[in-house]
Amino acid sequence: MYSVAICGATGAVGIEVIRCLKELKFPLDKLTLYASARSAGKEIEGYIVEEFHAEAAGKHDFVFLCVSGDFSREYAQQIVDGGAVVIDNSSAFRYEENVPLVVPEINADSIGDSKLIANPNCTTAILAVALYPIYKEFGLKKVIVSTYQATSGAGQPAMDELKEQTQVVLDGGEASCENFAYPIPFNLIPQIDAFQENGYTKEEMKVTWETRKIFGDSDLKLSCTAVRIPTFRAHSEAVTVETEKEVDIDRVRGLIDAAPGVVLVDDPTNQKYPMPLNATGKFDVEAGRFRKNEVFDEYGLDFFVCGDQLLKGAALNAVQIAKALV
Amino acid sequence: MYSVAICGATGAVGIEVIRCLKELKFPLDKLTLYASARSAGKEIEGYIVEEFHAEAAGKHDFVFLCVSGDFSREYAQQIVDGGAVVIDNSSAFRYEENVPLVVPEINADSIGDSKLIANPNCTTAILAVALYPIYKEFGLKKVIVSTYQATSGAGQPAMDELKEQTQVVLDGGEASCENFAYPIPFNLIPQIDAFQENGYTKEEMKVTWETRKIFGDSDLKLSCTAVRIPTFRAHSEAVTVETEKEVDIDRVRGLIDAAPGVVLVDDPTNQKYPMPLNATGKFDVEAGRFRKNEVFDEYGLDFFVCGDQLLKGAALNAVQIAKALV
Repeated sequence: MYSVAICGATGAVGIEVIRCLKELKFPLDKLTLYASARSAGKEIEGYIVEEFHAEAAGKHDFVFLCVSGDFSREYAQQIVDGGAVVIDNSSAFRYEENVPLVVPEINADSIGDSKLIANPNCTTAILAVALYPIYKEFGLKKVIVSTYQATSGAGQPAMDELKEQTQVVLDGGEASCENFAYPIPFNLIPQIDAFQENGYTKEEMKVTWETRKIFGDSDLKLSCTAVRIPTFRAHSEAVTVETEKEVDIDRVRGLIDAAPGVVLVDDPTNQKYPMPLNATGKFDVEAGRFRKNEVFDEYGLDFFVCGDQLLKGAALNAVQIAKALV
Repeated sequence: MYSVAICGATGAVGIEVIRCLKELKFPLDKLTLYASARSAGKEIEGYIVEEFHAEAAGKHDFVFLCVSGDFSREYAQQIVDGGAVVIDNSSAFRYEENVPLVVPEINADSIGDSKLIANPNCTTAILAVALYPIYKEFGLKKVIVSTYQATSGAGQPAMDELKEQTQVVLDGGEASCENFAYPIPFNLIPQIDAFQENGYTKEEMKVTWETRKIFGDSDLKLSCTAVRIPTFRAHSEAVTVETEKEVDIDRVRGLIDAAPGVVLVDDPTNQKYPMPLNATGKFDVEAGRFRKNEVFDEYGLDFFVCGDQLLKGAALNAVQIAKALV
């Protein structure tokens, strides 16, 4: 049995970590919730929130960091030095060579004896579980991804903003924005995170960089367009791939059906395909709309995935990493 | 001066045709609005709606069909035989060899002396004005499109459903659906129109078939994933292309800037890019987020377009076709 702590326990991801620990029956001895002094004393899921102190945090067996990259950069090493295994949900350490970046269904073995493990970007984790079985069997020459990302990726205040500002629009008013660059109700925003010199946003490049690291293939060619849409907490992604070997759609469906972390939802006749409506709150990522691609002929494939941004995209994957270590 | 009629004048597209005729200063002698007997007598934009009769319709100079494909199939030829030029907004005749399918900025010359002209699918028209300048200058080996389509594509009742059912969700209820296969508020639906044998939907194949016909290039390789999202009336599209010639992004921006029907909205530093919020109600399609593509190296390009589904995607393009003939 283990002593576990969550830093940033009052945020959207932190709360889901508590739920995932329970749902996955993590062998919990004691669970401690840390947040800022402002939130100390609050009750979350039956636990009283404590003010964060790095020294105390380091005394747990596992510490989930569900906080900003700046916070992680400041405290993660100190917590590790205190003796805890740290699973960091931020992007602070994802690209450091000696920090494993892990989707347990794919590269749990990369953890080794690391005490600091990075949890991937939400869009990446959701994509990776569906893409990996195809990568293993057919190889991937090119991957092109367009995302339909939920507001939860910007945290609980962003979800609240979608709800509140949608009501403003329905009441005939003009929506404002605090958590996005533009009003999100009945709109979309083709920018997530800052623009890079190459014209991609950082969110888009994260999907490229992180998929390469998780697959252990630094040559993988992947291009992403990341778009925020007015949904709450499930990310969807339209994916086009060129494969190295000739692709067989039925075989792909079979692989997805058998793969862990992803469920095949692909029955056009009965209008079954991945959707936020169904994927929200589910552990497994939904994958469907598998079809031979019109552009890459026998070596191409299109599909659509949808997964809960707060679960496989964040909290669930983090707890799965911890579970792989116990 | 010309006598003009609109069939289906009470629908979302029909009403926009009236507005576009005025905005484009179409040389109108008389405008007649037709609809079903049920709508006869209604006043729309200052005109009294009359019940449709094919014989009477044929006596106008131009007739806009803003009705179902079934209606067009039943009456279009009869109206043409009566002497009118018919511009059909449905998909009924788009794929017939002797019926020109026209985006005036691209292939107005294909009209010739045709009396029946097809107006393209909304997603196609919005894509085409931005894609064509690139096609002409650099050639296109592959085009991959993911769409973010507004509810207006399914008509005014679908837009009303988005509004009404969103309120139901905000009030804590469960959304229902009449115009979509699933509830649309805070959801997306990766199916528009019926599934084809190849696993694509008809909407997706329309984009392939119609772009080929408009560009006059039956070999163009184009793959589309069409997704309905909870927005009102502007369609967005994430586009990845492989070009035949080495691509120069600044040159592409210059071409888009100079091209008719499309406006360059591409200033990442100042967070300017195409969005429904700005493209709604505008004649020009917005194109931006131009960047060299990470997958096709020197021969690839990513960009994002957004255009009003009821304007360039329907009514505006139809009126532009008529204008090209006067």
